Amino acid sequence: MSEVLVVGSVGYDTISTPVGQREHILGGSANYFSLAASHYSKVNVVGVVGDDYEEDHKKILTDRKVDLSGLQQIPGKTFCWEGKYENDMNEAITLDTQLNVFENFDPKIPEAYKKSSYLFLANIDPILQMQVLDQVESPKLVGVDTMNFWISSKLDELKKVLERVDVLLINEGEARELTGMWNGVAAAQKLAEMGPKGVVIKRGEYGFLMYAENQYFILPAFPVKDVVDPTGAGDTFAGGFFGYLSKVNDGWNINHLKQACVHGCLMASFTVESFGVDALVGLDWAEIEKRHALYKSVITGH
Amino acid sequence: MSEVLVVGSVGYDTISTPVGQREHILGGSANYFSLAASHYSKVNVVGVVGDDYEEDHKKILTDRKVDLSGLQQIPGKTFCWEGKYENDMNEAITLDTQLNVFENFDPKIPEAYKKSSYLFLANIDPILQMQVLDQVESPKLVGVDTMNFWISSKLDELKKVLERVDVLLINEGEARELTGMWNGVAAAQKLAEMGPKGVVIKRGEYGFLMYAENQYFILPAFPVKDVVDPTGAGDTFAGGFFGYLSKVNDGWNINHLKQACVHGCLMASFTVESFGVDALVGLDWAEIEKRHALYKSVITGH
Repeated sequence: MSEVLVVGSVGYDTISTPVGQREHILGGSANYFSLAASHYSKVNVVGVVGDDYEEDHKKILTDRKVDLSGLQQIPGKTFCWEGKYENDMNEAITLDTQLNVFENFDPKIPEAYKKSSYLFLANIDPILQMQVLDQVESPKLVGVDTMNFWISSKLDELKKVLERVDVLLINEGEARELTGMWNGVAAAQKLAEMGPKGVVIKRGEYGFLMYAENQYFILPAFPVKDVVDPTGAGDTFAGGFFGYLSKVNDGWNINHLKQACVHGCLMASFTVESFGVDALVGLDWAEIEKRHALYKSVITGH
Repeated sequence: MSEVLVVGSVGYDTISTPVGQREHILGGSANYFSLAASHYSKVNVVGVVGDDYEEDHKKILTDRKVDLSGLQQIPGKTFCWEGKYENDMNEAITLDTQLNVFENFDPKIPEAYKKSSYLFLANIDPILQMQVLDQVESPKLVGVDTMNFWISSKLDELKKVLERVDVLLINEGEARELTGMWNGVAAAQKLAEMGPKGVVIKRGEYGFLMYAENQYFILPAFPVKDVVDPTGAGDTFAGGFFGYLSKVNDGWNINHLKQACVHGCLMASFTVESFGVDALVGLDWAEIEKRHALYKSVITGH
């Protein structure tokens, strides 16, 4: 089995949704990604936390065989995010972001991780994403995510990263911002022209649109009637996507990429059913298979 | 072959989109519906126009074998709508609506239409929809559409109509308004509780969500890179949907309903590629089959 390396944020979230609220729960793109990908593959994390980061929270990941030897723990406070969702569960409203130790994050890839076949650069400063790319030796497949903050503040650096990755996974709103195009079908092509061989636009409750090798592959999200907390849905989509690719371990293969999108959808659908990472932690393979079968029936009609 | 009867608006539109603009072109729900459905089935129209309605515009429909003997022409001006689209092509901004002769529309179903097997009540006053229902003898399948105006002004009447129809086809925004639920998955169930055995929520560029017999069937729209004018997409979805059902002529059958949604998507995808009804007029069956094959590959990945 091959391994996935993720570099991203590890922290605490305070979240309010129409269903309820939670304070100071486990969050961060690398945590969501890892817990999702861990259902498919071995996962290694590179990130940074402060001295307030609890051992119990590390244990949630190590219990799922996620390797945290690349998680630096340094003096200071851990990254915190506070947000809320109103009716439109597709859109988070950020109330507060405290970068804390994440502000001076210097991603050091442990020797053992440098030969990782699958690499996901979660939503961090494109300058750091580039530093990671420079440290990892010939991965089979590299994916990247980004956000509006970097699109507006470090566009040139981001463009350089895009030239070096295989797959861009991006929210619809950010795809629009980066291309200036509202239409997702057109935006995906434009994004592919910037470098990535594959582009996956994440559409929240509407699923995803993938564009690669002049083909579109588009599907809706798995229908979830009671969305509790959409936080991390995009990162768990990426986790299911890369976890699956690492599991089949065939590098760039468009058919595998399509299946990877399906597994991304499945992971996202579990995530939104509970607050934080709860659903991903309790999940077992039989539930994933059951939902996969149900998803197939929703999109094929039989 | 069985026949579809549609009762709805027939009129003129003035439309502005980011791509361009057109003045006083053929519009109205019944026209869009009929031209789409005509590719599958015989279609009969009941509606009203003023004495300014041009013979050439009738000919566009009769050339496609649409029967207009139920189209009343009375003194006065024809219904006119003016709207624009900005970036979000899913949402029309109404600039002006002139009901004109449509204001006192009294739908009379010609004797020859009363035994229509498939009936679609396009977006008109629910009181008129009820009058039509009272005139048609035991149709095999009845569908209805509505809009925010009737939801806010004639909710009780609308609810009575919903109790008498088989399928509700409705925009996402209006599904939210009618149920008070943002989540489409939950809203569809709630709408089904109001009466219709089947609910189809039209999601614009994100396709549709169908709920019937405790099953969901959900697919994205066919990917259109250059959307020219989304006007009538919803009505042509309904046209493809009912045209297909009339063609297979098997009444309520959930498997046919699912295929009908796919044909609704295909018709909508052609519609948005040109201004007004242009694309529907020029279309031939080979193009529909070609797009159907392409759509399958987009959603199945092979």
